[in-house]
Amino acid sequence: MKEKEIILAARKRFAYYGFSKVTMDEIAADIGMAKASLYYYFPTKVDLFIAVVTEEQDQFIEKINRILQAKTSATDKLQQYVSERLGHFETFINLAKLSFQAIQELKPLFADLHKNFSEREHELLAGIIRDGMNNGEFKPGEPEKTATLILHVLHGLRIRRYAFIKDFHFDDTLHQQIRDEMLQVLDMLLDGLRAD
Amino acid sequence: MKEKEIILAARKRFAYYGFSKVTMDEIAADIGMAKASLYYYFPTKVDLFIAVVTEEQDQFIEKINRILQAKTSATDKLQQYVSERLGHFETFINLAKLSFQAIQELKPLFADLHKNFSEREHELLAGIIRDGMNNGEFKPGEPEKTATLILHVLHGLRIRRYAFIKDFHFDDTLHQQIRDEMLQVLDMLLDGLRAD
Repeated sequence: MKEKEIILAARKRFAYYGFSKVTMDEIAADIGMAKASLYYYFPTKVDLFIAVVTEEQDQFIEKINRILQAKTSATDKLQQYVSERLGHFETFINLAKLSFQAIQELKPLFADLHKNFSEREHELLAGIIRDGMNNGEFKPGEPEKTATLILHVLHGLRIRRYAFIKDFHFDDTLHQQIRDEMLQVLDMLLDGLRAD
Repeated sequence: MKEKEIILAARKRFAYYGFSKVTMDEIAADIGMAKASLYYYFPTKVDLFIAVVTEEQDQFIEKINRILQAKTSATDKLQQYVSERLGHFETFINLAKLSFQAIQELKPLFADLHKNFSEREHELLAGIIRDGMNNGEFKPGEPEKTATLILHVLHGLRIRRYAFIKDFHFDDTLHQQIRDEMLQVLDMLLDGLRAD
């Protein structure tokens, strides 16, 4: 399928050079496609970037769905989710290769995409928590609200570190620090969720 | 004392117009002081701003110290701390009246100030938690590490909302939302800290 091929080529370019440094010409050349044909599928570079990010999001949601279906505890699922979630965030940062500020400026273009993803993510997380409450692993409570708070806490822990980076470059040490911290905070939250 | 008078006048100006819109001339005029004298006390506007913020920080730390000495539970102290902390953050934002981005750019100027304040704050919070662990209210644990994580979580919850505001204007609804969310998250964390 032509569209998939374009997305794959664009993904490679974006991941290597970042959103702003990639041109539609280069992507067309990568797959030996006339520029006009490329524009037929994706009228703008933003459209193409959205398609690439959407693909990543779908893969992430699929991964989380697999975690959800596994026969492990809700605690274990939440821990796996947290580990995976940071990776997904970094994929996005890596595709954009933009400073946090520049990403904020681009965000209106991705508003729908972001909203849609956030809702699916919230649903999945609330599902894990609901299962934990139903099977007696967690104290009874409000899974939707708890999921919202956990998502906001994790978002904050990512953002507070990334907001201060002016020129983006992938940093393994930082990544590891954020992940450790997220997992430690999750542990604290789990201590409160767990049925006594 | 001349210095206190200057700081008070500067505080009023900053709180009303914000850091970048205030001039040293205006502050000198407010207190009927020659510009040269003002510069004798504070060589630059940044120095004066630092003095104003330091004063606010001292008052905040004093307030928290009073909370600490009260005969209430550690839970109660942490809840009071969270309520007060957001107010302090807003005072700073209000004095600067700068976008989050502009504040980030100014930050190197305040690096020492910020570091010093963070350390005192961490000490106070760790103290509350340690007391709670010692008096059996909380499970045994590591007060320093717990304090760090709680501070980071609260910082993240503030930042994730403020990072997206381009042109600063004080927003009571947002303030209330952030405070409610911080207190809800604190409640979750306290559920985990509390001795069974």
